[in-house]
Parts: sequence; C-alpha cells; structure tokens
Amino acid sequence: MYLEKINSPKDVKKLSIEEMKVLAKEIREAIITRDAKHGGHFGPNLGIVEATIALHYIFDSPKDKFVFDVSHQSYPHKMLTGRRQAFTDEAHYDDVTGYSNQNESEHDHFILGHTSTSVSLAIGLAKARDVKGESGNVVAIIGDGSLSGGEALEGLDFAGGELKSNLIIVANDNDMSISEVHGGLYKNLKQLRETDGKAENNLFKAMGLDYIFVKDGNNLEELIEAFKKVKDINHPIVVHIHTQKGKGYKLAEIDREPWHYTMPFNIETGKPLYMDDTEDYTEVTKKYLVKKMKEDKTVVTITSATAGVLGFLKEDRDKVGSQFIDVGIAEETAVAIASGMASKGAKPVYGVASTFLQRTYDQLSQDLCINNNPATIVVYYAGAIGMNDVTHLGWFDMAMMGNIPNLVYLAPTTKEEHLAMLEWSVNQQEHPVAIRIPGGQMVSTGKEFKKDFSKLNTYEVNQKGEKVAIIGLGTFYQLGEKVAKLYQEKTGVQATVINPMYITGVDEKLLEELKKDHSLVITLEDGVLNGGFGEKIARFYGNSDMKVLNYGLKKEFLDRCDIGELLTRNRLKADLIVEDLLKY
Amino acid sequence: MYLEKINSPKDVKKLSIEEMKVLAKEIREAIITRDAKHGGHFGPNLGIVEATIALHYIFDSPKDKFVFDVSHQSYPHKMLTGRRQAFTDEAHYDDVTGYSNQNESEHDHFILGHTSTSVSLAIGLAKARDVKGESGNVVAIIGDGSLSGGEALEGLDFAGGELKSNLIIVANDNDMSISEVHGGLYKNLKQLRETDGKAENNLFKAMGLDYIFVKDGNNLEELIEAFKKVKDINHPIVVHIHTQKGKGYKLAEIDREPWHYTMPFNIETGKPLYMDDTEDYTEVTKKYLVKKMKEDKTVVTITSATAGVLGFLKEDRDKVGSQFIDVGIAEETAVAIASGMASKGAKPVYGVASTFLQRTYDQLSQDLCINNNPATIVVYYAGAIGMNDVTHLGWFDMAMMGNIPNLVYLAPTTKEEHLAMLEWSVNQQEHPVAIRIPGGQMVSTGKEFKKDFSKLNTYEVNQKGEKVAIIGLGTFYQLGEKVAKLYQEKTGVQATVINPMYITGVDEKLLEELKKDHSLVITLEDGVLNGGFGEKIARFYGNSDMKVLNYGLKKEFLDRCDIGELLTRNRLKADLIVEDLLKY
Repeated sequence: MYLEKINSPKDVKKLSIEEMKVLAKEIREAIITRDAKHGGHFGPNLGIVEATIALHYIFDSPKDKFVFDVSHQSYPHKMLTGRRQAFTDEAHYDDVTGYSNQNESEHDHFILGHTSTSVSLAIGLAKARDVKGESGNVVAIIGDGSLSGGEALEGLDFAGGELKSNLIIVANDNDMSISEVHGGLYKNLKQLRETDGKAENNLFKAMGLDYIFVKDGNNLEELIEAFKKVKDINHPIVVHIHTQKGKGYKLAEIDREPWHYTMPFNIETGKPLYMDDTEDYTEVTKKYLVKKMKEDKTVVTITSATAGVLGFLKEDRDKVGSQFIDVGIAEETAVAIASGMASKGAKPVYGVASTFLQRTYDQLSQDLCINNNPATIVVYYAGAIGMNDVTHLGWFDMAMMGNIPNLVYLAPTTKEEHLAMLEWSVNQQEHPVAIRIPGGQMVSTGKEFKKDFSKLNTYEVNQKGEKVAIIGLGTFYQLGEKVAKLYQEKTGVQATVINPMYITGVDEKLLEELKKDHSLVITLEDGVLNGGFGEKIARFYGNSDMKVLNYGLKKEFLDRCDIGELLTRNRLKADLIVEDLLKY
Repeated sequence: MYLEKINSPKDVKKLSIEEMKVLAKEIREAIITRDAKHGGHFGPNLGIVEATIALHYIFDSPKDKFVFDVSHQSYPHKMLTGRRQAFTDEAHYDDVTGYSNQNESEHDHFILGHTSTSVSLAIGLAKARDVKGESGNVVAIIGDGSLSGGEALEGLDFAGGELKSNLIIVANDNDMSISEVHGGLYKNLKQLRETDGKAENNLFKAMGLDYIFVKDGNNLEELIEAFKKVKDINHPIVVHIHTQKGKGYKLAEIDREPWHYTMPFNIETGKPLYMDDTEDYTEVTKKYLVKKMKEDKTVVTITSATAGVLGFLKEDRDKVGSQFIDVGIAEETAVAIASGMASKGAKPVYGVASTFLQRTYDQLSQDLCINNNPATIVVYYAGAIGMNDVTHLGWFDMAMMGNIPNLVYLAPTTKEEHLAMLEWSVNQQEHPVAIRIPGGQMVSTGKEFKKDFSKLNTYEVNQKGEKVAIIGLGTFYQLGEKVAKLYQEKTGVQATVINPMYITGVDEKLLEELKKDHSLVITLEDGVLNGGFGEKIARFYGNSDMKVLNYGLKKEFLDRCDIGELLTRNRLKADLIVEDLLKY
C-alpha cells in the first residue's frame, strides 16, 4: 500500500514509475469505494488519476500552483496532498469538501465549483507571481466540457495574446461534458486526438497559445515526459491530454453520463443503493415538456450541459430530437438563444439550476428582459433545500434576478400551480417568465389550478383572517399554513394566509386592504433576505403602522450546511415563528 | 443625392455599383456632420458603410435578418431602412436611438448595446426560423473587439458545432476595439489578414465554422461578391472582412481610439466644441492610481477594453507599462484575474462602468467573493447621472451585486472620502471591495477624510438632530443635506443627517439608537429601490414604530430619459421630499 505513505507531494516524488502505477490503482480503488458508499463525482476523478500523480511528481506544489477547473476532479489531488484519510476512512469522508479549498490545504488556491474559471484564475496567480518578482509554475487543469464556457474562452484568448510568462493549461480531454460534448471546438479536439495533435486549425494555436499533445493521458510515462518538457516554460502552453473518463470501473467507462456523479451504489452491480420513485417536480416538468413539444413543434427545451437537472435522460432527448438543445456549458448563449427564439414566436424553455443561472445575469437583463421576449426559464434547485456546497447554493436567485425589470418571476407552491404556470408561460407572448421550482418534496392537491397569470402581481388569499397576515412564498407557503394553524391553536386568532406567487411584484391593492384589519404581516421566503421578496413588503409598509417581519436566509456563504440547523438559525420553523408572533 | 431617395432597402437594390459608391460618400458625410454637431459613435460607423450597403443590396431585410453586435455601428443601416432623416436633419437627430431597436423599424430585431451578444441572438433567430419551417438568412455583424467576449465565443462554438442551417457571421475586422485589441485571437485575425485568409490555425475553422475572407471590406464589389456567395447557404459561415475604422475622416483613420465615440467637434480641426476642464472623479482616481502604481509595483490597474472610462489615455498607459492590464472585452476574466492576483498579495484595481459590471455577476460571487480576496473594483457611471441609453443604465449595480455576501460596497460622497476609501481598499487584505463613484459634479471639502473603514458598516452621523433622520447614500448625500436644511427652514426641526458609506451593510447599533428620539427615517439612493439599500433599512425597522420612507428609482428600463424629469418623477428633489415629510 503506497497511498497510506503519501502525506504530501514530496512522498510522490520518491516513487518509481512502477510504484506510481500501483499508487494509481490504489487511488482508483479508494475513489470507487468511497463514492459507492458516500456518493460523489466519479468519472472525472477516475479519469485524472495518472495526470494528477504526474503533476505532483514533476511540479513542486504549493510553490507551483495547480488550479483545477470546477475541481470536481480534485479527489486524487486531495489524496496526494495530505487529505487521503478523507477518501480511505469512512469515518472521515466528510472531513473535506468535494471541491478545492484553500482553507483545507496550502495546495489548493481557490474555493471553486462553477465551471470554466480555472484559466482566468490561473492568469491571476501568474500575474501576481510576475508583479511580485516571484517564480514557479502555474497550472490550470480544465476538462469535462468546461472549455466551451465564455470565461474559459476569454481566459485562453487573454493567455494566448497578453501573458508573456509561465502558464500551463492542461486540457483534460475525455470527449465528454456531463453528457456528450456540444460545440464546434470539441470537433476540433477530436481532430487533434485523431492526428496526434497535428490537425490543422488548432483552436489553441488560433488563440495564440503554444501546444503539445499527449496521446494517452492515462499513461504515466507519457504524462511525465510532457510535464517535464513544459515545466518552467517562459510562456503559456496548452498540454492537451486524452484521458478516459471513468477509467477503471467498467460500467463508468461505457456509460459515461450517469457515472459523472453518482449517489451511493453497489460496486458489483452498479445499481444505486437507494431508489426514490416518488414523483417530483423535475419529473412532472419533463413529462409536461415532452408532451408539449410533441403537440407544438415550436416549443424547444434548452439546457446548458445539465440535461440531468431537467430530468432529460438520453432516451427522453432522443424522443424529442432537435426540439431539445444542449448548448454545452454556455449559459449566456442559452439565454440569448432563448430570447432570439422567443422574439420570433418560437417557444423556448430554458431549464437551469439556480446556482448556474448566476452565470448569465447580463443576458437576462439585456438580451432577454430589455427586449421583453416571452421566453420561459425554469429554475431548479433554488432555495435552501438542494445543493449545499458553498459554490452551489441556490438561494441567491431571487436577489440576483428578481430586481430586473420586465421579468415575471413566479413561485409555485404545488404541482398543480407549477404546471398551470408552465402552461401559461409557454403559451403567452408578453413577458419573459421564470418559474422557481419549490424545494423539498412535491406537494400535490390533486385539483387542477386555474388562474389568469397575465394579471400580474395578483396574490392569492387562501385563508381570510385578521390581525396577522402570513405571506408564504413558494417553498415556504406550506410553512405559512403551519404557522397559521399553530398560531390559531395558541391564540384563537385566525390569521390571513397568502400565496403571493409573484416574486417580482407587489400586490399593492391587497397589501393596502390588509391595513384595515391587520397589524402585522410576516413574509417567508426561501432565499437571502437581502434584495429578496420580503424587503419589498417591508418597504411598502414603511410609512404605515403595519408591522412587518421578514423571514428568510441571512446573507452569507455557507458550506455544506445542515438544512435543519440552517432553518432553525433563521427561525424558519413554525414554532419559532409563532414564538415571535406571540410577542406582538 | 441618392441618400434622400432611399426610403427602404428596396431603393438600395435599384442602384448601380457606381451609384452605391456615391451613396457611401453621402452616408459618410451625414455621419461626420451629424456626429460633429451631436456626438455619437464615429469610427465604427464610418468603417462599415460599404458593408452595410452591400448587405442591403444582396439580402432582403427584414425577411433576411441582420443583428449588429453592440449596434453602435448601425447608423448606415438605419439610414438605409427608413430612418435617414435622423441623420440628415438636425431637428430629427434624436428621433432614433444610437443602437438597434425593433420598436423603430422592422429591420431591427433587438434592443442591444452591450457587446458580444450578436452571434448567440442570431442563433436564436435561426432556430426560430427552423422550428417554424420558415426560410431566410440570418446575419450577425460583429467587430470592434467584441469577438473576445465570452458570450461571442460561446456563440461561435455553438454555431460551429450544433447549428445545421443558415447563419452568416460577418466578422468586421478593423484591428481595433475601442483602443487597440487585446487577446490571442486578434493575432490570428492579423495572420489571416496578411495571408488573404489562408493562415493556418484559423480560429473560426477551429470552432467548426466555414470561412471566407474579403481583403478590402470597404470595397463594394468585393463585398457584394462575397455576400452573393454566402446568401442562402445551408450552414453557418464566417465572412471575415477587413475594414478601415474611421474611413473617410483623416484624423479618425490615423488616431482611431479617441474617434471611436466623439462628442461634438469642429470638422475642420477635429477639436471638441466644448471642453470641460473641471477636475472630476475619473481624473482624481487616475492620478491616485498612477501615483500608487509608481510607489508599489504590486498595484495593477485592470480594464476590460474601456481604458477611457478610467481616464487612462495612451500616454497614461505607457507611463505605467505592464501595471496596466487591458483584458479586452472580457469582464469575467477581468474579475477572475483580479481575484487571482489578490489571493497572492498583489493589489489589483479593476475599473469598470456599472452597466458593464453586470456582465460578470457570477465571477463576482464565485471567483471573488466566496474566496474573499481583497481586490478593489471601482465602479464608474453608476446611478442616474451618466449614460442614459436603455442598454447602458447605471442604476442596477447596487441591487445586482449589493446582495452578494462578503463584498464591501462603498459609496463615497466627496473626493476626499473617495480617495480615502481607495487608499484603504488597495492596502487592506481582508475583503473584496467595490467603490461606487458618485454621479454628477465632484464635491470636494478640501479637508482630508479619515476613517477606519475596516470597522464595517459604521455610518457617519454628520448632523445630530431629532425626529427625522435622513440617510443619504453616495450621490444623494448632498441632497440629504439640502432636505435637512429646507426641512429646518419650514419646521424649525433639525433633522439628523447620516452618510452611510456602506451600501452592503446596515449599522444596526446606530439605527437602534435612532429609535430613541426619531420617528421617521428617510433613505435616498441613486439606484433602483428594489433590492437596493433603502429596503434593508425598511426591513430593519419593520417590527418597530419607526416610519421609513425610501427614495430611489423605480424598477424600470428607460431609454434616454431626461434626468431632471426622472428625479422629479421619483420625488428625488429636496422640495418634493420635504413636502412628503410635512405630512408626518
């Protein structure tokens, strides 16, 4: 066992090639065992084992600096930099994050988890080195479809034209994004792979970059030779390595998409340990879209490399053909295409996780909302319940885009409301609309929901009461109902319960009416309070006698927070809220 | 005079080549005359005259659809599509906007003014055409440095890999951005120009795109031949045309940077008609930075292709050498580089207009703020006073980024505060900091301002009063003083006047204290109220007896609004505010 003797990159340097090959095998076994028990990024880590060993063998981290793009493939790096226990000892699996993190190790330089950032961040490290008169290599490792993201392409362009010093860009080419790659540049990578890097019209060279090719990116000797060659180079260079995603686990080598990230599974069979067949919002949304696309050829579903987030498996995509567009990692282009399509009467629906929608603020504002084009955006994993890595939080979307004029951002609270909103949005021709899928288990009333959503900012009063009005937005509407019930039990007072539905507007008429027989309004929202929904209600009542209490999340970045604890800390529990109410 | 007979593109088609050459001359004269009197984009429009005529001669707008990138070069297009009077008749100069606008003409398809969007928007038009079973050409016209922006590169990549139908991308290559171009791809364009398009490693081909080259992009015959060739093509193709920026006005041909956009000038001499030598925030910021960079080699100023916004003319840039980085149009990369540099102790200062900072929300959040790296961002043209085209509004920045955790966003109200904030920010190592340059004329007290800004969210009470507290943020602090003065004149009551300085935080201790002897707090901010500063104050006081009135801008897109009218409509005038106060 070599892995257990690796406490820092220095220990890697002591090994022979043959010993490193055994080490690679041990690292792979650790990844397979750990992900089978714990879940995690799988294929990307299995593919980069040899490259990571070779990097640490040739370069001198932390003086030489590695920046892993997205850093979902940094498990082998973590294992070689003093963090192996988190991959070999089940009790310590959660000691480290799933991404790079400078607070964990001096061998990491950024907390990152969004794609396509590594080259530009690495340029920053190189520039800092240069202005401080320091030395050392800076190495960006980018792959898994990340090259097509605007920031990555900007970075390549800058590096190729402007940086006159050391920068090594390892293009880890496994011919895959999460699903198959999309975009012309990947045709270019394929040509390069097929010609030992000699194809004409080399993208990297076209960007002004020097270039070498490594045919077998899982071959230690080849990698070591290449990295030796580029070490201490005095200008930017791309090392294009061809690796096998999922290498070492047969099923993942063959069926690469579902093995990009895995939940706990049985190593023998590859089957997931836990299956959840409960119908969820993702599933009903997908079913709706597939049906709608069949009925109407102008309805088109768009994803930016996360078909799985939308529940569109390969068989679903095949079913709808060219009406499903994967733009690759290119959120900006996704929004622009949706706007362009909507401007001429087509009906685009862009599905995207809240955290990744952040990557396209300006296109939402300029390309879409200034033009008021009636595209639909479905926002997944929004709010506190969902992804909880600090880089993937879904609770900034309302503050981020809820203040852009013209956008109608809707918050359904049940399956039926969600489907009614979708149907309205896809068919209407007046507004850019976003729909925020609620967090947690899907709520279904079993009754069709009807409402004329074109009457903007008309909230629904679902229980008329007095004194206290509870405005429960989206995910937290049911919490609002609970609060009302508990409050009534404690005080005998029936509160008014409101489902606002519209994140982006205030129902001024209704709020005005509440003044008559209410003295307190509380708002509940599944996002940061700052810039969010509740503050607009507080502003509305600012000059009146109405008291307003806003419940939501504190403005902060949290890593892998416990959701129960988070809600308690923000007093987003019925008993805590009623405790507060009783003070009034 | 041919121009006066052109009422639609149909009239262009009737002309002979020789007549079109005369038309080109007339269009040029109109641009020169109009910009000399009115100001406007100059070099880009002079460069694209022949290409625009040729486009309308060969294609059939509006069935064939043109999307001009940024659309600051769409004057000739406007002249040929029924809007010539706005360029030939001084009384009508303001009848049309400076950018494309579908509300003006069926020959325009988007309101746009930010860069690098045309290819992706055009793909949307092409996709809509395809799913609706329609026909026609879609033509994106992109140049002036816009190719380096992430969205443009994403669009090229998607077009080259995924679009299987007609799309024509006219790459208008004049070897310039606003200033000189930056980035490796421009080296590639240069190689292509020098080899009649035959250089190896063609960027467009590397993206999977078909390609032809037009040697003289100001030669009508060559252009017509090329456009004829690509018309009705069944796949995406790039037509790379080499044009002369500023063609037809000698000074602009030679000195292209200052002639990208011009204020009114004397045609004979090229000298501006009005000179304003008043020292402004831009000038003092530049002076500070130049001095600081000399003293400290780790201080680096970054721009994303708008050196002029920062007041850095060519001679200033030459003075500071490699400590001034122009990343080209690549705002995302600018923020990432700043973060990377700051992470290792260098001192980057990224200067950028509020409207363009929108293009990098996710990098602010992820690359910078999650990592808490101490980079400095100086935000220009923020608020209501500044650029007023609908695509260039500077009043969304506080809502956009003011709700991102860890960011310290500061609002100085005088020259001295601004310089103190800059000095603190550049030297400190704790926080990502942005500084929002106030709108309007620079205010100077003549006295050095001292404050320990590391004590976050500590507001300054500049006048202690009672009953009413006025919190005047940034630009509107002096308005707050005026309100206090007028209110005292009317009522004898001295109000408390507060300079909050921190956009991103609430001084809870101070606000709590105000409860003792104040019953009304008003906030004044130079940005949209939704998601902005004042709402946080309203939320703070929501559960108390304190009344709060928030003054700021309504959430809306406005085109070329009159600033006085805008302020009046939002009651941002001292007399109107006092009128409101007197009601309490």
